[in-house]
Amino acid sequence: MLKTGSLGIVGATGAAGSKILEILQEENIKPSDLRLFASEKSAGKQITFADKIYEVENLQTADFKGLNTIFFAAGSSISKDYALKAVSCGAAVIDNSSAYRADPKVPLVVPEINFNEVNASTRLIANPNCSTIQLVMAIAPLHRINPVKRLVVTTMQSVSGTGFKGVEELKKQVSQTLKGVYPEPEIYPHVIAFNLIPEIDAFNPETDMFKEEEKIIFETNKILASDIKISATAVRVPVYSSHSESVNLQFEKPFSADEARYVLSNAEGISVIDAPRNSLYPTPLDCAGSNKVFVGRIRDDLSAPNSLNMWVVSDNLRKGAAWNAVQIYMRLISSGYTS
Amino acid sequence: MLKTGSLGIVGATGAAGSKILEILQEENIKPSDLRLFASEKSAGKQITFADKIYEVENLQTADFKGLNTIFFAAGSSISKDYALKAVSCGAAVIDNSSAYRADPKVPLVVPEINFNEVNASTRLIANPNCSTIQLVMAIAPLHRINPVKRLVVTTMQSVSGTGFKGVEELKKQVSQTLKGVYPEPEIYPHVIAFNLIPEIDAFNPETDMFKEEEKIIFETNKILASDIKISATAVRVPVYSSHSESVNLQFEKPFSADEARYVLSNAEGISVIDAPRNSLYPTPLDCAGSNKVFVGRIRDDLSAPNSLNMWVVSDNLRKGAAWNAVQIYMRLISSGYTS
Repeated sequence: MLKTGSLGIVGATGAAGSKILEILQEENIKPSDLRLFASEKSAGKQITFADKIYEVENLQTADFKGLNTIFFAAGSSISKDYALKAVSCGAAVIDNSSAYRADPKVPLVVPEINFNEVNASTRLIANPNCSTIQLVMAIAPLHRINPVKRLVVTTMQSVSGTGFKGVEELKKQVSQTLKGVYPEPEIYPHVIAFNLIPEIDAFNPETDMFKEEEKIIFETNKILASDIKISATAVRVPVYSSHSESVNLQFEKPFSADEARYVLSNAEGISVIDAPRNSLYPTPLDCAGSNKVFVGRIRDDLSAPNSLNMWVVSDNLRKGAAWNAVQIYMRLISSGYTS
Repeated sequence: MLKTGSLGIVGATGAAGSKILEILQEENIKPSDLRLFASEKSAGKQITFADKIYEVENLQTADFKGLNTIFFAAGSSISKDYALKAVSCGAAVIDNSSAYRADPKVPLVVPEINFNEVNASTRLIANPNCSTIQLVMAIAPLHRINPVKRLVVTTMQSVSGTGFKGVEELKKQVSQTLKGVYPEPEIYPHVIAFNLIPEIDAFNPETDMFKEEEKIIFETNKILASDIKISATAVRVPVYSSHSESVNLQFEKPFSADEARYVLSNAEGISVIDAPRNSLYPTPLDCAGSNKVFVGRIRDDLSAPNSLNMWVVSDNLRKGAAWNAVQIYMRLISSGYTS
C-alpha cells in the first residue's frame, strides 16, 4: 500500500478519469483525501473508491485549496481553464490533455524515458498523447543504443480514444448493421462500424495533417530527439480498446531484428511477443487491460539501409493515458516532489 | 453488349467467381456458351446468369475442350492442378490465384499499366494479388513521370479477401461479442471481431514475412520496376469489403502533393477524393461496390526528400480481383487474342 497526500481528479466520470481511479485501486494507492471533479452535469454523482463513497463536485465552483496533487483528465479546454488555477493553489498537476504539451517550460513525461526532466519545482507535467506514448516506449530503448533517423508510422486507433461516447457509437452502429439498418454517424464523421476513418482530431490546413498526426510528430521529437524525421498517418478503426501501430524505423547504424528483439525484451514496461510462425504477435484484443506496451513482428527491412519494421500495441487508456499518469504520480511521490 | 465466345469459370461458387459472374452481367457480356466449374461438393448447384440457369460441373471430371477462355478463381492449388490442362485444351486462361505470378514467362497484368506484355501467343495471364493491384494502380501514374525509389506500405485488408468464410466469421463473432459471448476463432488465428491481426497468408521464416507481404513486394516489382525498394506490413481488419493502404512514397525527384493529385485525377481507373478539411477521403465502406481505385490524404511528407503520403482504398473483390480479370478478358477479345 502507498499512502499519499490529498488527491484531486478532474474529469473523474470520463473514460480516462475512471481508468485513473481503477488503476489507483489496483496499485493500492491510498490518498489521505480524494476529491473528484466533473462538469455541472455530472456533479452529485457518487463514485466508490476503496470501499468509500465520494460525491463528484462541480468543477466550475470548485476550490482546489489543500490538494497536493491533481490529475486533469477532461480534455484540453478544461485544462486550459483550470490547470494553472490548480497550480496557483499549490497543487502539482498531471495533465492528460494536449493543453500544455507544446509549452517548452512544461515537461512531457514518459517515466521510463525522461522523468529526469522533472524536478522539485515542477508543478505542471504533461502526459503525452496515447499514440505517442506507446511509440516512444517501443523506440526509446533502441534509440539509446543506435539513434533513430527516420520513422514512418501508421496508427490504427481504437474508439475508446474518443471516450465512452466512441465506444457507444461503435456498439450501436455494429448492432444496427447486423439488423440491416444503415447507421447514421454521430461522433465520427463517417460510420465506424466495419469501416476505417483516416481522420483523428482537427484538420490543420497548413500542414495538410490531422492534429493526431501532428501530435505524434511533435511529441516524439520533444520526448526523444528533435532531429528524428517522422511521417505519421492516424486511422480510427472499429476496435474497442488498444491502439496498434505499424512502425518502420531507420537507424544511424545497422540494427538487426535479433538485436532489437533482445534489447526490447529487457526494456522496462515492454513485452515482446514475436513468434509469427506460431501466429504469436500482439493484437489489440489481447493487450487490452494490460499496462505494458507490446511489440511484435520485429523484422529486418531491406528496403532502406539500417531499417526495421515492428508492430506496437498497447491499451490506450492505460499506458496511453491513466497508467502513465499514475506512474508520474508515483514517481513524484517517491522523489519527494509531492506528497 | 459484347458478344464473346465460349467461356468457363473455375471456382464459380466462391467469392471471386461469383463476383466475376456479377461483373460480366453488369458489363453486358454475353458468351456464346458459359460453363461453370467447382469442387465436387458444389457440383450440381444451379446459377442464374443473364436469365438462363446453368448447372455447376464437377471440376475433377470436367473437360475443358471447346472453351475459348477460362477464368480460374479457386485458389492456388486448383490453378496448379488444372490451369495448364486448360491451356493445353486451347483455352486462354486468366488466373486469379498466385500459382503462376512468379513465373517469368507468365505476364502479371493490370490492364491500365502493362497489357502490352500480352501478345497473340499468350495463353496464361496471372491476375495480381488484390492488395498489389490497388497499390500499383495508385503509384503507376506517378512512377511514369518521376520514378518511385522506395515505398513503405501498411495494408488494412477486409475479411472478404478470405472469401465467404471470412465474411461469415466476422459476422458471427461480432454478434457473439454483442451477446457477451467470447468468440472462438475458426478461420483466422485470432478473433477478428473488434480486433486487428497482422498476419495474412502463410509465414515464411526465411524472410520473416507473411506471404501477403512478400506478394506485395514481388508483384509490385514485377509489374512496375524491379528496383523499387519496398517495405510491406499486411493487417487483417474487421471490415467486410475493400482494402485500405497507408502508403509512403519516396521519388527520384521532388513531387508536390498538388502535382500528384492532378496526375492521379486524370489517371484511368482512379478517383481522387481528397478534401480532408471536409472529412472527404476514401473509406472502405464508401468504396465497396465500385470498380475504381480511390486515393486521398495525398500530402507532402517532410520526413525524407521527395516524399509523399497517401491513402488508397479499393473493393478487393472488384478491382482487386474480378474486375481486373474481366478487364483482361475484354482486352484479350478487343485485341483478337481470344474470342
